[in-house]
Amino acid sequence: MAQSAKHRDALLKSSARLFRRQGYSGTGLKQILEDSGAPKGSLYHYYPGGKEDIGVAVVKVAGRVVGKTLGVLATKSESPSAFILAYAGMLAGWMKGSEFRDGCPITTVLLEMAPESELITQAGQQVMESWIDIMSEVFISHGWDSLAAERAANLSMSSLEGALILARVKQSSSPILDAAEELARLWGRDESSQ
Amino acid sequence: MAQSAKHRDALLKSSARLFRRQGYSGTGLKQILEDSGAPKGSLYHYYPGGKEDIGVAVVKVAGRVVGKTLGVLATKSESPSAFILAYAGMLAGWMKGSEFRDGCPITTVLLEMAPESELITQAGQQVMESWIDIMSEVFISHGWDSLAAERAANLSMSSLEGALILARVKQSSSPILDAAEELARLWGRDESSQ
Repeated sequence: MAQSAKHRDALLKSSARLFRRQGYSGTGLKQILEDSGAPKGSLYHYYPGGKEDIGVAVVKVAGRVVGKTLGVLATKSESPSAFILAYAGMLAGWMKGSEFRDGCPITTVLLEMAPESELITQAGQQVMESWIDIMSEVFISHGWDSLAAERAANLSMSSLEGALILARVKQSSSPILDAAEELARLWGRDESSQ
Repeated sequence: MAQSAKHRDALLKSSARLFRRQGYSGTGLKQILEDSGAPKGSLYHYYPGGKEDIGVAVVKVAGRVVGKTLGVLATKSESPSAFILAYAGMLAGWMKGSEFRDGCPITTVLLEMAPESELITQAGQQVMESWIDIMSEVFISHGWDSLAAERAANLSMSSLEGALILARVKQSSSPILDAAEELARLWGRDESSQ
C-alpha cells in the first residue's frame, strides 16, 4: 500500500472508532492524529474540509462495510428469520468483543450532527437506505411481496439500531438477540397464517 | 417557585435540550449557563460533580417524564396495538415539531458516556428498565402471559429507539409510524392465531 493511502486508512479507522465510542464532538483532530499516527499534512490533504469531511467519509465507509456483510449473510441465509438471527448473532458477538463500547458505526455521529451538517446527514440517509434495501431483498428473494418486504426491512432496521443502544446501556448482548428472536418468531407465525 | 429551584429547573431544561440536539461532549457548561440564564453559583450548588452530575439528572428526569406519559397512555389504550400506535403518533408529532432535531432524550448522552461514566450508565439502565416494565404491563393487562409481554415490550422499546434515530437521519416521521404499524399488524396476526 502506498504510504499516503496507508495514512488515509489509518485516519479513517481511528476516526470511526473514536466517533463510535466517545462521539463526534468529543473527538478532536489532535486525538485522531495521535491515535492514527498519520502526519498532520495527510489529514488536510485527504480531508480539506476537516472534521466534517472525515465524518462523511466515516459514514460512507461504514455503509460499505456493513452493506458487504449484510450482502454475504443474505446469500447464505435460508430464510429471513435465519438472516436476522445470523446478523444479530454477529452484532452481539462484536459488541461483546468491544466490551460494549462500540455500537452502530454511524448512529452517534448522526445523532450529534443531523440535521446541522447537511453533508453528514445526506451520507447517513444514503447509507441507511442502502442497508434497508439489502434487507428488503432478503424477504423478496424468499417470496414476500415488495410491500411486506419493505415493512419487515424497516422494522428490522429500527429494531436492531435500537437494540444496539440498549445493549450498550445494559452492557449485555441480550437486547440484540432478543429483538431478532422475537422478529423471527413473529414472522414465523405470520408466514404460517398466510 | 423559589428562585433557586427555578434555576435548577432552567439548568436541567437547557442541558436536556442541548445534550439531545448536539450531544453531551459538544455542550459546555458555559453554553448551559448562557442558555438557562442561571447564575454560575447555582450550577455548582445543585451539581457539585459538574457536567456528569447534570448528565445523571437529565437522564433521571427524562426517565420520569417519559414514564409518566407511557403510564397515561397505558391506562387509556384499549389494546397493546392501540398503545404502541398512540405512543408512536405522539413521538412522530413531537419529532416533527422539533424539525427532527430532537430524539430520545437520553440516547445521545448514553452513546457518548456509556460505559465510561458509571453514574450515567447506571441511571440509563434504570430508566430503560422502567420504560420496558411499563410497556410490559400494558401487554399483561390485556391478558398476555408475562414471557410474551416481556418479549413484546423489549422489541417495542428497541424498535422505537431505533426508529427515532432513522427519523432524525431521514428528517421524517415515517420510520416511527411504520415501526408501530408493523408491530401492531404482527401482534394482530399473532393474537388471532393463538
